[in-house]
Amino acid sequence: ASQARRVLPSAEVIALERGRDVSYGSCGIPYNIGDPGRRIDDLIAISKERFLSERKIEVRTEHEARAIDTEKKKVEVWDIEGKKAYDLPYDKLVVATGARAFRPPLEGIDLPGVFVLRELSHGAAIKAFIAERKPARAVIVGAGYIGAEMAEALRRLGIQVTVLEIMDQALPGWQPEIAALLEQELLRNGVALEIQIKVGAIESTRDGGLRVQTDRGAFEADLVLVSVGVRPNTELAQQAGIALGETRAIAVDGRMRTDRPDVFAAGDCAEAYHLVSKRPAYIPLGDTANKQGKVAGANAAGADRVFRGIVGTAGFKAFELQVARTGLGAYEIQKLSIEAVAALSEHQSVAPSYPGSQTITTVLFAEVPSGRLLGAQMIGRAPVGKRIDVLATAITAGMTVDDVEALDLVYAPPLAPVYDPILVAATVARKQVARAGKGTPNGRG
Amino acid sequence: ASQARRVLPSAEVIALERGRDVSYGSCGIPYNIGDPGRRIDDLIAISKERFLSERKIEVRTEHEARAIDTEKKKVEVWDIEGKKAYDLPYDKLVVATGARAFRPPLEGIDLPGVFVLRELSHGAAIKAFIAERKPARAVIVGAGYIGAEMAEALRRLGIQVTVLEIMDQALPGWQPEIAALLEQELLRNGVALEIQIKVGAIESTRDGGLRVQTDRGAFEADLVLVSVGVRPNTELAQQAGIALGETRAIAVDGRMRTDRPDVFAAGDCAEAYHLVSKRPAYIPLGDTANKQGKVAGANAAGADRVFRGIVGTAGFKAFELQVARTGLGAYEIQKLSIEAVAALSEHQSVAPSYPGSQTITTVLFAEVPSGRLLGAQMIGRAPVGKRIDVLATAITAGMTVDDVEALDLVYAPPLAPVYDPILVAATVARKQVARAGKGTPNGRG
Repeated sequence: ASQARRVLPSAEVIALERGRDVSYGSCGIPYNIGDPGRRIDDLIAISKERFLSERKIEVRTEHEARAIDTEKKKVEVWDIEGKKAYDLPYDKLVVATGARAFRPPLEGIDLPGVFVLRELSHGAAIKAFIAERKPARAVIVGAGYIGAEMAEALRRLGIQVTVLEIMDQALPGWQPEIAALLEQELLRNGVALEIQIKVGAIESTRDGGLRVQTDRGAFEADLVLVSVGVRPNTELAQQAGIALGETRAIAVDGRMRTDRPDVFAAGDCAEAYHLVSKRPAYIPLGDTANKQGKVAGANAAGADRVFRGIVGTAGFKAFELQVARTGLGAYEIQKLSIEAVAALSEHQSVAPSYPGSQTITTVLFAEVPSGRLLGAQMIGRAPVGKRIDVLATAITAGMTVDDVEALDLVYAPPLAPVYDPILVAATVARKQVARAGKGTPNGRG
Repeated sequence: ASQARRVLPSAEVIALERGRDVSYGSCGIPYNIGDPGRRIDDLIAISKERFLSERKIEVRTEHEARAIDTEKKKVEVWDIEGKKAYDLPYDKLVVATGARAFRPPLEGIDLPGVFVLRELSHGAAIKAFIAERKPARAVIVGAGYIGAEMAEALRRLGIQVTVLEIMDQALPGWQPEIAALLEQELLRNGVALEIQIKVGAIESTRDGGLRVQTDRGAFEADLVLVSVGVRPNTELAQQAGIALGETRAIAVDGRMRTDRPDVFAAGDCAEAYHLVSKRPAYIPLGDTANKQGKVAGANAAGADRVFRGIVGTAGFKAFELQVARTGLGAYEIQKLSIEAVAALSEHQSVAPSYPGSQTITTVLFAEVPSGRLLGAQMIGRAPVGKRIDVLATAITAGMTVDDVEALDLVYAPPLAPVYDPILVAATVARKQVARAGKGTPNGRG
């Protein structure tokens, strides 16, 4: 909306929001929950009132878009508070319905004290519940990013935490070596972790608590968080006949156009073009959503911008560990039938002559025999996020591991060792590519 | 030597060293000096004895190479302790004579208490002087990397520090906005800084101290450090008729070959190919020296490796600030007659929803009208080194600021804001390029 306003100052720009809140940074919710001194509303970047006064954008909260008529170019809106329906015509429409936390069909998932975490209202509800009920024990279902971040937040509040994960490791889809280090960090910080465990019903107990039934016994808790991924909100688009893509999110081109004229889509309801797989991907993340939204809004107002796509860069922090990835992982590489190596390496974050050096563990995926860098995952108690950004840049540029090995990176004892973990990882990967390709390793041992 | 040994296990590998020490990390000396609990010898990576026992490399310390005869393929060696000369024949020779601290022709520069800092022995001498004499006041001549690092080290030891810089800013050659922030950091930490000041004679005082005369009065000190850059040790090569390049360091190709058959050169005595200017450059740094040395040693033993070159990446830490650069600076850009903008931006290091966010200041140099990224400088109390590495990678790949702006970098509140300072800097630069090129800014405001 803000980009549309900038590009076309004369336009009437209206934003419809089913809930009460707009323009908040949902990625900040776990940390906010872990700090009782912070108000949850601190996560709101711009209020509805400021959108109107500063940007001439009318935000209608608690107004739900119920149907889109792409022929007559209008949206059927339900005013939740006013309990009335009305039609809103449009010249250009942007569908930004986002995603919702997946709620698995478990008995008891709607019980008080059982939460999902996606929207600001969820964060507010969890925060209020903790403040009022002072839970002593929490069960988190799902050991993904949110599960790990919430484990930290709840531990910070002194709450006992048990994380239950159905797959055979934390961070399903990541390399096992990376996941194992996260698991150790959770355990080191007093988080109980159960993997390959299947959650059944959630029950109320007589003392007002909750009991999570599993195939390996029951877990008592005062608070249960179910964080098992998200699903794109595509019902509105589907009903309007807007095409979904192969990932089942809304199909868009680089200009964020859907298959219907004058209808754009952006954010967690839409696909993004993956620059490595060269296929549409569904990797809903805040920065991608923000960038797509800007392009969609600008183009809806008459600009001609392109969102080039993503390489799958993502990261998070759990306790003292930074964890990040970019490009393709083992599963995607296999699905695309690309022959590749997964090269594991460890190296120190700063020079041995400087205090505070930490081990950084890296996995690089490289194509055989070309050596093209396909993906990377890193974990460590040191700046890993920006190192993944180096590799994301290399992947975007189509570099091989030889190219990465030859990069001129900063060396200074407090910042990095002579050979940064990135360069060491590239050397290890180059050798593995050479061995896998059965070529001669270019005279290098 | 180690690479030569690896590539050709049967070879006889001999290393000559004029001084007593080999294989030390000189970049770690300032921090080591600032920590009385660390032994200066901790900076030695591999001892002479281990070179022999573990790698079958004979290191002859206090043996000075006095002359090279490239026709007869022999080196004239002076055994300093044994006080005798001998000839050492070679099949392949690597000249790795390094660089020396420049000692300006000032009266009194050889007085006790006046130091330069380049070799381990210098560090040992300064450290011993501080331990024995407990200097209260130091004057540092030169406000470059070493001057700034040593200011921190000496302040850490409780020594009053005054830095004298002849140019009109600290960090000569860097952007004034970056230098100004370093200057503030020095002042904030109790370092007195005098710029545009010309040092004259250094004198002994009656009380056993030193007096540094300048064109703006005298500065009393107990210790004086002169850190005004380095010069390549090229005398030996020159005497042998080995060609120097336009930078007056030894000219080499990508295989580290000099113009004489079977003679290689590597490290701080040699040039390196600059991938942005596409000309030889003299930017002596430890990581470049290490990489060049490996290539020269391997090729001397029969391998065929290439050192691709540098993009001028460098960084350091002074007090709480990280400072780093890559690519070309304003001076080099002007010398190459490239039309470019220098785009200044500021942005936060992490999301506002997370504590500890710090301002990062960035200058990007971009070519007009192409937008090609030419160089970058960053400063801040946050991970800046790895961000410069992202830009070094982008420069190596030939990216434009538009390409950088489109990068998919990590977003997670504890790691980076939605738009990393790199992306914000690229946006600012893209707009400046568009304005400078008088083209339309691609519909973007």
